[in-house]
Amino acid sequence: MKKIERVCAITHILTEHPNRDYSLGSFAESFGCARSSISEDIKLIKKAMEEGGLGYLETSAGVKGGVRYVPFISDAEAAKVLNELKEAFEEPDRVLGSGFLYTSDILFSPRLAKGAARIFARRFAGAGADMVVTKETKGIGVALFTAELLGLPLAVLRRGSRVSEGSTVSVNYVSGSTERIQQMSLSKRAVRSGSRCIIIDDIMRGGGSVKGIEDMLSEFDAAAVGIGVVVVAGGMGGKKIGDYLPLLLMSEDEDKKLRMDINPELLAKQFRP
Amino acid sequence: MKKIERVCAITHILTEHPNRDYSLGSFAESFGCARSSISEDIKLIKKAMEEGGLGYLETSAGVKGGVRYVPFISDAEAAKVLNELKEAFEEPDRVLGSGFLYTSDILFSPRLAKGAARIFARRFAGAGADMVVTKETKGIGVALFTAELLGLPLAVLRRGSRVSEGSTVSVNYVSGSTERIQQMSLSKRAVRSGSRCIIIDDIMRGGGSVKGIEDMLSEFDAAAVGIGVVVVAGGMGGKKIGDYLPLLLMSEDEDKKLRMDINPELLAKQFRP
Repeated sequence: MKKIERVCAITHILTEHPNRDYSLGSFAESFGCARSSISEDIKLIKKAMEEGGLGYLETSAGVKGGVRYVPFISDAEAAKVLNELKEAFEEPDRVLGSGFLYTSDILFSPRLAKGAARIFARRFAGAGADMVVTKETKGIGVALFTAELLGLPLAVLRRGSRVSEGSTVSVNYVSGSTERIQQMSLSKRAVRSGSRCIIIDDIMRGGGSVKGIEDMLSEFDAAAVGIGVVVVAGGMGGKKIGDYLPLLLMSEDEDKKLRMDINPELLAKQFRP
Repeated sequence: MKKIERVCAITHILTEHPNRDYSLGSFAESFGCARSSISEDIKLIKKAMEEGGLGYLETSAGVKGGVRYVPFISDAEAAKVLNELKEAFEEPDRVLGSGFLYTSDILFSPRLAKGAARIFARRFAGAGADMVVTKETKGIGVALFTAELLGLPLAVLRRGSRVSEGSTVSVNYVSGSTERIQQMSLSKRAVRSGSRCIIIDDIMRGGGSVKGIEDMLSEFDAAAVGIGVVVVAGGMGGKKIGDYLPLLLMSEDEDKKLRMDINPELLAKQFRP
């Protein structure tokens, strides 16, 4: 196999499996070449990725020397994703008669959900998190891609209590959409004591549901080290929770028309890890 | 930028965005080189990917000439994924007092869910599908990754009816886990008439819930062109639906101990597209 083909194959494998460790020895074995050749390939891929703003390769030296791919999204790419999201949410026929916004197709679009996840993964890459947590149902797509990009497991809080979750912990929260008290549960097996969690949710109004997830985590002696929401309604202040990162701010303009703004903090390029 | 670095960058971009079209012209522009150089790079990547069993590059010629990456999982990789899944499901402490199996951590593990999705994506790549459909909640992970790999949108059927889905269609189905009649709904906006759908679900017992999804699709004048389930219980026959692809077969051995077998059809390497 020629060097350039090997570089292509290794780039592909690393990209497909973000934040997974590969030993140089295993690559050397698969490609039937010396470990030193793989080491040179990795240097080259690292340079190409980093110069192109495509991601980082973290390498460790020594006998057990290995490599992992850490995803990255450049400012330019992030701006493209944010504009795509903004335009999708702003489509006029999304406003339902009930005043709600139809968002399922956006939030389960692999392309858009992954785009949002890439921004969250960049922001929370340095948070030292052990897992990603979300609440069913519409945040699951973005949360799952965020977990994938960060190489972390995902736990999903369920509405009510589900028999297939075994023993669960339940908490009550005030849903922003219905303004009623609702219950959600999480399997006792889902979160280890002391876990550092990234909370991802789709839409935040009062912050009640994210606050509910935080309450749940404290029942597990776990805590949030990052909170990402795709859309926040009614301005960023006055929520039931502290620091969080929204991608889009939803409001109404003077004519009561829906308005989506990109979180200015993200456009100010202040979201480096 | 040197050729080898360009090849690395293009490989990375194509791998990150399966089944998305890229024009050679846009690559030439980003990398500041001639279109003919990009064309050579693509040929090289195509060769390396195809010889390594890593995926295919589909190219189109002419002025609008473009390229897309079509994922593939080799027989050897698929066998590895299937064994990993089997071992995870077989862990003895998964069996709950209720007789149910705790599976949320497996089904929301990005690594395991994506592994399962890669096998479904390979099997259904040639089905000419327009979208992937699943039912909340635990099938969403595998369904989303399958949709991503095939470059398709995902629609998620909801339990009961949700106000944020707008006008919905509802169907009743008999749940295999509770043996009760349950209702699920889907937004009228979610599926276009005539759509060809791939149904993905986590666990199938009697087939009632997949049958319910099929009934739902027929309400939209849509139809299933492929059905994938991660685990089927109680043997492959006698279900309420026709042809489907399970990854694992769940049964009890003589001592009433849980047993998981890999679908023999998959080990017989008969799952080429």
